Amino acid sequence: MAGSVFFILWGAVLVFSMHSGFAFLEAGSVRRKNVVDSLTRIITDFAISTVSYFAIGWPIAYGLWMFASAAGLVGTNQGFNLVHFFFLLTFAACAPAIISGGIAERVRSIPVMLSTVLIVALIYPFFEAMVWGQLGWLGSATGWLAHLAGEPFHDYAGSVVVHAMGGWLAVPAILIIGPRVGRVVNGVRKDFSAHSIPWLALGSWFLVVGWFGFNVASAGSLTAISGLSLR
Amino acid sequence: MAGSVFFILWGAVLVFSMHSGFAFLEAGSVRRKNVVDSLTRIITDFAISTVSYFAIGWPIAYGLWMFASAAGLVGTNQGFNLVHFFFLLTFAACAPAIISGGIAERVRSIPVMLSTVLIVALIYPFFEAMVWGQLGWLGSATGWLAHLAGEPFHDYAGSVVVHAMGGWLAVPAILIIGPRVGRVVNGVRKDFSAHSIPWLALGSWFLVVGWFGFNVASAGSLTAISGLSLR
Amino acid sequence: MAGSVFFILWGAVLVFSMHSGFAFLEAGSVRRKNVVDSLTRIITDFAISTVSYFAIGWPIAYGLWMFASAAGLVGTNQGFNLVHFFFLLTFAACAPAIISGGIAERVRSIPVMLSTVLIVALIYPFFEAMVWGQLGWLGSATGWLAHLAGEPFHDYAGSVVVHAMGGWLAVPAILIIGPRVGRVVNGVRKDFSAHSIPWLALGSWFLVVGWFGFNVASAGSLTAISGLSLR
Repeated sequence: MAGSVFFILWGAVLVFSMHSGFAFLEAGSVRRKNVVDSLTRIITDFAISTVSYFAIGWPIAYGLWMFASAAGLVGTNQGFNLVHFFFLLTFAACAPAIISGGIAERVRSIPVMLSTVLIVALIYPFFEAMVWGQLGWLGSATGWLAHLAGEPFHDYAGSVVVHAMGGWLAVPAILIIGPRVGRVVNGVRKDFSAHSIPWLALGSWFLVVGWFGFNVASAGSLTAISGLSLR
Repeated sequence: MAGSVFFILWGAVLVFSMHSGFAFLEAGSVRRKNVVDSLTRIITDFAISTVSYFAIGWPIAYGLWMFASAAGLVGTNQGFNLVHFFFLLTFAACAPAIISGGIAERVRSIPVMLSTVLIVALIYPFFEAMVWGQLGWLGSATGWLAHLAGEPFHDYAGSVVVHAMGGWLAVPAILIIGPRVGRVVNGVRKDFSAHSIPWLALGSWFLVVGWFGFNVASAGSLTAISGLSLR
Repeated sequence: MAGSVFFILWGAVLVFSMHSGFAFLEAGSVRRKNVVDSLTRIITDFAISTVSYFAIGWPIAYGLWMFASAAGLVGTNQGFNLVHFFFLLTFAACAPAIISGGIAERVRSIPVMLSTVLIVALIYPFFEAMVWGQLGWLGSATGWLAHLAGEPFHDYAGSVVVHAMGGWLAVPAILIIGPRVGRVVNGVRKDFSAHSIPWLALGSWFLVVGWFGFNVASAGSLTAISGLSLR
């Protein structure tokens, strides 16, 4: 069991480092005046996600109450549940991080923080619970999909739960907010270049390196490892 | 045993990468003219720490002589002692790295290098030996603390041995060196802004990511892993 | 076996991250106008190396055909061969990355891409097969070396297979291309400074951190770990 705890933790640290990737990819892509705003939003979102997921989101998705005693949380599996929480927290926090790139340069901090609480505490966990978690009555939705599509719905490493979910949640935000001031002048699109390719490249590298933790540790335990990203 | 060697090595690599965090956090926080000085000092300090700890500090703290034969050092535990040395070297080298941030922009290289030898070869290892190591007669100091405080002194991952120690050693240096030239003019404090928030942020990210190696691998062996940062 | 798969994968991710080190070391060392060119070349070379090594290089070196069925590739060793492929791909891609630093600022993209195909698909794998791989009749060259030198040729972590090979292949490229325009004026060498020490330093840090994966995971399996870089 210690091997699986270490394996999942290794993956969690890599996915955590992907959040620095989101930060620097966005910071390099925006105009210079918005660099600090982007860097601040990603780390703030992660902090808020941690509290929201710990207190509300994780208990909804997996039915484990995190204010139990430390001994109870460690249990008899060398703290696997605790490390698993950290691993899936780094997934949950991807939703606001993905949205962040879509709304960059044209949001204020407080409304974004409030939406992060809402998404990570309540919206994402219901979807997560339906696909990976404990809510059987929501799971019937996937049964309905299986009936419709001929195959059960299967999501190995969050391609829909994390990535599509983040994208879907970004769409209404983008439609409401609209383009950046000065981006379209008299119907003509003005180009806003990324202000720094090296920072953009650094963020991309952090993302591709961390992705191996995301996909491989999604096997869920050391013994389930297979060299392939499927289960 | 191979599992523990891998586990401690994983942690050591993360703590080693934290030193790049110290470097970029400091480099981003200073004025532009001192960037190269900060980057150079952290890597130089690590190099000097390696030699000082290998030759003098580690033998003092744990009684293992590192100029023994390779076969003797590898021993019967798949080189656990060697990897453990590397892990605790990355801790020992934190002392000068923590001090470095306190004295940035107003030191010359040679005196800092000499103080790094002194700290990592002789000062830090005595304190380390008292809390984690072999020096029983120093350990009586912790017995005295237990008598005074009612509980034995316990330091899981260096909160006192590494972090407080680094801070304490920085205090006299800061008092002797004083503020930067032009920082206080006629009693009025002039603000010296960090010259680059992105580099400062990058250093912070390296530190928070590496911290998981620092704290988790402090469990000391793979089987001691528990998902909690305590022992 | 799962332990070894995890161990080699951990190493592979570290060596993969070294390629970001090559990218930023080169990007910081060149003139500002060539930063994007350097960043692009390293990632493009890695992508081309992946396809070339997967389809041609790896089968030559180790006799494993990668277009076999997924079940066949995973085999009975939890996908060790697949992870081993990824590990040695990150080695193979070092050859063009090492060359890249030597030819920076004075090459066009298409010829470099073609040379990367040639090197990673055909030149590097023959050398690799001779030292580490399957081609016995090439191995006789190392027997000839053993006869000449009194000891068999032994390369633990690619000091010759990867690093010397990369250097040797760079020599003719450098001789043909010559120095940068304006580097030598009337026999007097003009200094072209690195345009950014922080980016250069960041690349160096990625390289030294990743090096632990390069050297340690070259042990080849978790049980072969010994704390020393030799076999």
